[in-house]
Amino acid sequence: MARAGRRPGQTETREKILAAARHRFAELGYDGATVRGIAADAGVNAALLHHFFGSKQALFAAAMNLPVNPATVVPAILSGDRAEVGERLVRTFLGFWATPDGRTPFVAMLRAAATNDQVATMLRQFIERTVLAQVATALEVPKARVAGIAAQLIGVALLRYVIKLPPLVQASDEEIVAMLAPVAQYYLTPGDDAG
Amino acid sequence: MARAGRRPGQTETREKILAAARHRFAELGYDGATVRGIAADAGVNAALLHHFFGSKQALFAAAMNLPVNPATVVPAILSGDRAEVGERLVRTFLGFWATPDGRTPFVAMLRAAATNDQVATMLRQFIERTVLAQVATALEVPKARVAGIAAQLIGVALLRYVIKLPPLVQASDEEIVAMLAPVAQYYLTPGDDAG
Repeated sequence: MARAGRRPGQTETREKILAAARHRFAELGYDGATVRGIAADAGVNAALLHHFFGSKQALFAAAMNLPVNPATVVPAILSGDRAEVGERLVRTFLGFWATPDGRTPFVAMLRAAATNDQVATMLRQFIERTVLAQVATALEVPKARVAGIAAQLIGVALLRYVIKLPPLVQASDEEIVAMLAPVAQYYLTPGDDAG
Repeated sequence: MARAGRRPGQTETREKILAAARHRFAELGYDGATVRGIAADAGVNAALLHHFFGSKQALFAAAMNLPVNPATVVPAILSGDRAEVGERLVRTFLGFWATPDGRTPFVAMLRAAATNDQVATMLRQFIERTVLAQVATALEVPKARVAGIAAQLIGVALLRYVIKLPPLVQASDEEIVAMLAPVAQYYLTPGDDAG
């Protein structure tokens, strides 16, 4: 059924674009796939695709069913008091996983990336071009340190939601935030160590 | 070919025990599988199994082809200056992944655990009973904080060796140690935060 305010033809066009995007991202990686190529595959012009999705990264997130658009989430985390960026980052990340609907596409992507080289390439390029590049540039932190935060968060998600390690399952979200926020903040504060 | 100093009959017995162990650990989990049951499946007595492998955790590591026995590695990390436990832990972990031979069984287990609930259960119980319990008890740190370190290390392994995120691939082992050691040390020092 078409959603309110969206004509049936639009829903069809949207689905065609998403199917073309999934195919191109998987085949060519995040870097290799172009918005123009995806539009051509879907039989629409690039302006219409832009109207529906706004940007390549938003299109990627929609194609992967991720309930989040890094183009808006990352700036929201980075704005405000720098001393609390670490905490906002951890809190926002945990929020994505808080509901089964939010969690399912992330778990699916994590599993696929762990077992399929094509998906790993696609995810690697996406993380590098969007999250790492945006955070590293905005906060003037080396990309390796932002990758350290990504590793911490993905590791917690893996152990808490996939492996279901009891101490992390039993901890509340607030306890996890209290434990991880100083780690994220450490990575965002070069000079604390040799890194 | 039998290895030097090991009679052919011994090699066969060893392989029979390992096959029985793999089967029982997968079926019953790490907690549910007993050394006695594995010995019975393999048609040997428990004393002989103990002679070959020493302990349930060493048997598990051998059955999973892990190039490491937590029964000896964990105490080695925990001994010595407490202020440097974090660094020893990170350095030891990276050492397991340093060669393709070391890396392959870990990557295989990570992939299997991410996609197969039986393997996830087995790995969860193994991590909880061995690594978490030993470190938490020896250093009097909550298990959730040791799980935080495990998440950081597994996340780095996943992003560096499976997803191959460039900033982590390009960093040297020493740079990774310098970056991660303070994180591990933070987790082992409760009271630095609310956790």
